[in-house]
Amino acid sequence: MQPAVHVGPEPDRAIEEAVSTAGGRIAPLEQADAVVWLDSSPDSFPDPLPERVKWVQLPSAGVEPWLERIDGSRLWTSAAGAYGRPVAEHALALMLAGGRRIADCARAQRWTEPPVVPLHRSTVAIVGAGGIGRALIELLEPFGVDVLAVTRRGTGGTLPADRLGEVLPAAHHIVIAAPATAATRHLIGAAELEAMRADAWLVNVARGALVDTDALVAALAGGAIAGAALDVTDPEPLPDEHPLWREPRALITPHVANPVATLSRYLAEHVRANVARFGAGEALLAPIDPDAGY
Amino acid sequence: MQPAVHVGPEPDRAIEEAVSTAGGRIAPLEQADAVVWLDSSPDSFPDPLPERVKWVQLPSAGVEPWLERIDGSRLWTSAAGAYGRPVAEHALALMLAGGRRIADCARAQRWTEPPVVPLHRSTVAIVGAGGIGRALIELLEPFGVDVLAVTRRGTGGTLPADRLGEVLPAAHHIVIAAPATAATRHLIGAAELEAMRADAWLVNVARGALVDTDALVAALAGGAIAGAALDVTDPEPLPDEHPLWREPRALITPHVANPVATLSRYLAEHVRANVARFGAGEALLAPIDPDAGY
Repeated sequence: MQPAVHVGPEPDRAIEEAVSTAGGRIAPLEQADAVVWLDSSPDSFPDPLPERVKWVQLPSAGVEPWLERIDGSRLWTSAAGAYGRPVAEHALALMLAGGRRIADCARAQRWTEPPVVPLHRSTVAIVGAGGIGRALIELLEPFGVDVLAVTRRGTGGTLPADRLGEVLPAAHHIVIAAPATAATRHLIGAAELEAMRADAWLVNVARGALVDTDALVAALAGGAIAGAALDVTDPEPLPDEHPLWREPRALITPHVANPVATLSRYLAEHVRANVARFGAGEALLAPIDPDAGY
Repeated sequence: MQPAVHVGPEPDRAIEEAVSTAGGRIAPLEQADAVVWLDSSPDSFPDPLPERVKWVQLPSAGVEPWLERIDGSRLWTSAAGAYGRPVAEHALALMLAGGRRIADCARAQRWTEPPVVPLHRSTVAIVGAGGIGRALIELLEPFGVDVLAVTRRGTGGTLPADRLGEVLPAAHHIVIAAPATAATRHLIGAAELEAMRADAWLVNVARGALVDTDALVAALAGGAIAGAALDVTDPEPLPDEHPLWREPRALITPHVANPVATLSRYLAEHVRANVARFGAGEALLAPIDPDAGY
């Protein structure tokens, strides 16, 4: 079948091309079998949605603001996995910035040698083995690092989340790439920071709430770990007067791991794959489980 | 044969272990067939060297200060290639820091979004395809980038140096990883900077003199390129009052691509390989050609 797909709230050439390439046709909302929604906020989302819409594709990997809108009368998919590549690249940039002391160097106004360590042959813990984690493992392949992947249930050769305490003291880098749920809130708190090596770097490219910010501020101030490189914060945006802005062991990037400039390029690939699967009656990528919260 | 190897000016456990592992034995200078010298300056080097010494291993990749000491009565080898891995890692850290605007973020005291671009699927020019260039190509493999490698003679699938002008306008990143010689001095000058894309990043992990610093200062101030990330400078160390320290498009790391902390680990691997080759009468790694200057 050729699915009729509505793209909203505004037309988007890259996404519409992806729909067509995958065998779909662009349709107005009232004739649509599926909706690809490009606004990450649900505010302008059609309410009610026509009954004939059997599938909604959302534009973000995290769907916290959507959980109340997601109904059981159709399939909803997120963009989880779509941005794994660019976000994993940012995670690697932050890991290298940590060990290579790029933030210290960027702030220095004179030639002073910081204590640089290579990533090569170190131990890297990756918490969450979804699209970001898998893409990061690929990027790390030539570095000869030991990867310790931690997932909720510990399937597929990963360690279960309840063994995180064993992983933390071994890792030079701890990368947070797990979804934000009630169960992962403050996954990294005072005890976890305490368990880390004194030369460890914490990298968060997931959601701010996975890390207990107050505990992190204290750990950094006390030199409990080498540093934290965060693309996401809690609160976010981080207020101007927040102590992390003045903490020399902290590096903050303002939620840019998935750059705006290439967002539609990666989303278009995801939409193309899902429209083709929808047309063929196959299982879609990144179905949302509202009970799990992602 | 079991070569007698002198390690100086001071004993070094990691290097001496490497000599033994490779089948050599540690010997005083007057009984030595070979010398592994760990001081990168020639000031304390034995003069004259006993005639029975048939091979000298130096500790640095660049050997400019040694060129007057290198004689034709024995073989001299540098550590070229030994540090390819850690230096290539630093080059990647600087490339990612460029596109991901890590320096801007490190300097920011508030949440302001910089224009981030992924490295994924971009075009990378690597000038010099020795140990650093080859290791960098390995690290870049999972990024799906187009690599344009430039070498002096353009052998082995690389482009010759006289076609650099064609490469520059195509590259998002230009990485300098070539030896410093009379021929490569100011390889990147005003004309080359002018030929680069306005969104290009220049990365130098080789030697400062390969880039015309004054031309670079002007190019950065005028916004001719996106930025420069330099581990090496000319002059080096960069004086406190140098304009590059205040240039927002510049990121300076103080010649730390090959970290002190892991220097002897990588040098030991190189020494082990060369002692084994010397004992077996095979060609050594990184022979110095005093006429070429490296």
